[in-house]
Amino acid sequence: MTLSSARMDSHSPITVPVPLGDRAYDILVGRGLIESAGTRIAALGARAAAIVTDEHVGPLYASALTASLEAQGLRVCVITLPPGEATKSYASLEWVCDAVLAAKIERGDLVVALGGGVIGDLAGFAAAVVRRGVRFVQVPTSLLSQVDSSVGGKTGINSRHGKNLVGAFHQPSLVIADTALLDTLPLREMRAGYAEVVKYGLIDDARFFAWCEANWQGVFAGGHERDEAVAQSCRAKAAVVVRDEHENGDRALLNLGHTFGHALEKITAYDSARLVHGEGVAIGLALAFRFSASLGLCPMADAERVEAHLKAVGLPTRLSQVPGGCGTVDELLDAMAQDKKVKGGALTFILARGIGQSFIAPGIAADEVRRFLTGEISA
Amino acid sequence: MTLSSARMDSHSPITVPVPLGDRAYDILVGRGLIESAGTRIAALGARAAAIVTDEHVGPLYASALTASLEAQGLRVCVITLPPGEATKSYASLEWVCDAVLAAKIERGDLVVALGGGVIGDLAGFAAAVVRRGVRFVQVPTSLLSQVDSSVGGKTGINSRHGKNLVGAFHQPSLVIADTALLDTLPLREMRAGYAEVVKYGLIDDARFFAWCEANWQGVFAGGHERDEAVAQSCRAKAAVVVRDEHENGDRALLNLGHTFGHALEKITAYDSARLVHGEGVAIGLALAFRFSASLGLCPMADAERVEAHLKAVGLPTRLSQVPGGCGTVDELLDAMAQDKKVKGGALTFILARGIGQSFIAPGIAADEVRRFLTGEISA
Repeated sequence: MTLSSARMDSHSPITVPVPLGDRAYDILVGRGLIESAGTRIAALGARAAAIVTDEHVGPLYASALTASLEAQGLRVCVITLPPGEATKSYASLEWVCDAVLAAKIERGDLVVALGGGVIGDLAGFAAAVVRRGVRFVQVPTSLLSQVDSSVGGKTGINSRHGKNLVGAFHQPSLVIADTALLDTLPLREMRAGYAEVVKYGLIDDARFFAWCEANWQGVFAGGHERDEAVAQSCRAKAAVVVRDEHENGDRALLNLGHTFGHALEKITAYDSARLVHGEGVAIGLALAFRFSASLGLCPMADAERVEAHLKAVGLPTRLSQVPGGCGTVDELLDAMAQDKKVKGGALTFILARGIGQSFIAPGIAADEVRRFLTGEISA
Repeated sequence: MTLSSARMDSHSPITVPVPLGDRAYDILVGRGLIESAGTRIAALGARAAAIVTDEHVGPLYASALTASLEAQGLRVCVITLPPGEATKSYASLEWVCDAVLAAKIERGDLVVALGGGVIGDLAGFAAAVVRRGVRFVQVPTSLLSQVDSSVGGKTGINSRHGKNLVGAFHQPSLVIADTALLDTLPLREMRAGYAEVVKYGLIDDARFFAWCEANWQGVFAGGHERDEAVAQSCRAKAAVVVRDEHENGDRALLNLGHTFGHALEKITAYDSARLVHGEGVAIGLALAFRFSASLGLCPMADAERVEAHLKAVGLPTRLSQVPGGCGTVDELLDAMAQDKKVKGGALTFILARGIGQSFIAPGIAADEVRRFLTGEISA
């Protein structure tokens, strides 16, 4: 079973269009794309580019990308930040904005985010606010960022009140997802990103979830299945984003697993040694399905199938698997209440009637959540 | 001569609509509007409001505005900042965003900017980025902010590389311009704001400039002329903003006097003891007309008439009037090159063929500017 016939041969990239009117852009997916990135980026018409990257990714790819851009006549500067979630801070935002301004990046020029979700979110936010908006290109280097954070235009930093609470909607002008870059990704990061791939099947595509169950080993090994999984995830996310760019409605479906997941990230103090985003999402997906089952909305067999697949790829699915503990029920509820997807004081969850049948459930009473979590913690 | 018949009687406000599609909003202009502000703001449908103000304005009006909002059932918090341009900083942005989040302002709630341009720009930027955008209301308390910064959705802070270099386009949901608040405004601030009023006449409305020459004393004294001047300025700015919301073209006309003005503000280190924005604009307007005349574009008589009116109201018109000096020609040019209205390395000026006949002049050579400024400094 193949997911798409959009690719002419194994050497040309898969193109996923994101048709957002005058903010439309393409996501290119394929192996080895970074080598031709300069040509593709230069075609956007800029005179200069500021590459924003981190100390892990920069040494691997920044010089190749710089050379590729300079070969097209662009003036290039590289801005390197420490790796890790702590970089999504006000201080980093100031640092990047001032560095982009110091590099005399003008309105027609570009910011290029070369890194994972942290770099993409930070560089995208900086691009959104420097000179009240310059264009930016995403070159995501992790599976998570290729399938999630580089699609949809959400950018931002963390506040002491929670993750991603300060930011902007700012669409990239181009996304270049080179799947060969994932060959050097640590297995833990690969698994974490894969949780978001699975999520797209669980939201509204039971066929894709079944494809994942059958093909996940190819995704991890780097075969054509990887390109297809990335492209299909981008297509799924793009479809939702096009329906609801500014998260007033349907886009909330993408938060399946994230209300629980963000709470766990908060409780573990965004310490990636304990829990990375995708692991929080994996536990969150399993919880969302078990919560749906406990409310009588979804067959328990579907919740078990979700858990079985996440376990098969080596992802956590239980609160007891949070290293250092997941906190008390009250701490979890409090962390969820601070999440930005609160409206009018009630909790909004994404629940499911089955695999591929998720829906937005506003106004879930805290008592229901408390009862469920109490059972989970004592399980 | 009256400018408008939109007002039914002297007690109902003048409404200036800003028809920006789904971002459309009204500007209300009139005496004593702050007393009914709660009703008007509550009509927007929020449950809570964070009032952002400064230590000068807050003690005068924050409690009345709070009471007016609370009487409509809104939960209100007040966030107070130090007055002055230095407040438009990254540190203040962080402080306001975190305070708004601590007050549990949700997506449907409001930020209310109660103050002059500094507070409006900062609070508007915070509203643009908290939760990736919450609505905001402007209650401008200075003439400058009533006629300029509260109209058009430009928000932002200053970078060490220049003024307003970091920010967002974020339209308010409502602007309430209570002209009675200007009764307590220091004369210097009144004059500075008036420079922007004059600017609208100079851009494309010779009739309004003539009206200003005849009626400026009524504007300063607080008669109906003040309401009309504010409303007409808002109409003029709104017309330009509607044509070009994101400053890709015509909106640059609003920068008449500002390329010089911003450079002078930079050189005086944004020290309001030396020069406030409107004074920089007044000198900038006079310079723009003399520069246009020196290039043979505009009759010298028009440049002299502009200078005469600015002088009549007590505004500076010469580089020699910058307290502490205006720097060297090189310093001025350097400050202009860092201004964000640079495109492709060339300087863009707004020049004029006469009063009310301004136009965008891209690609002005630095040598032309140098020659002109050398003459001005030695004059």
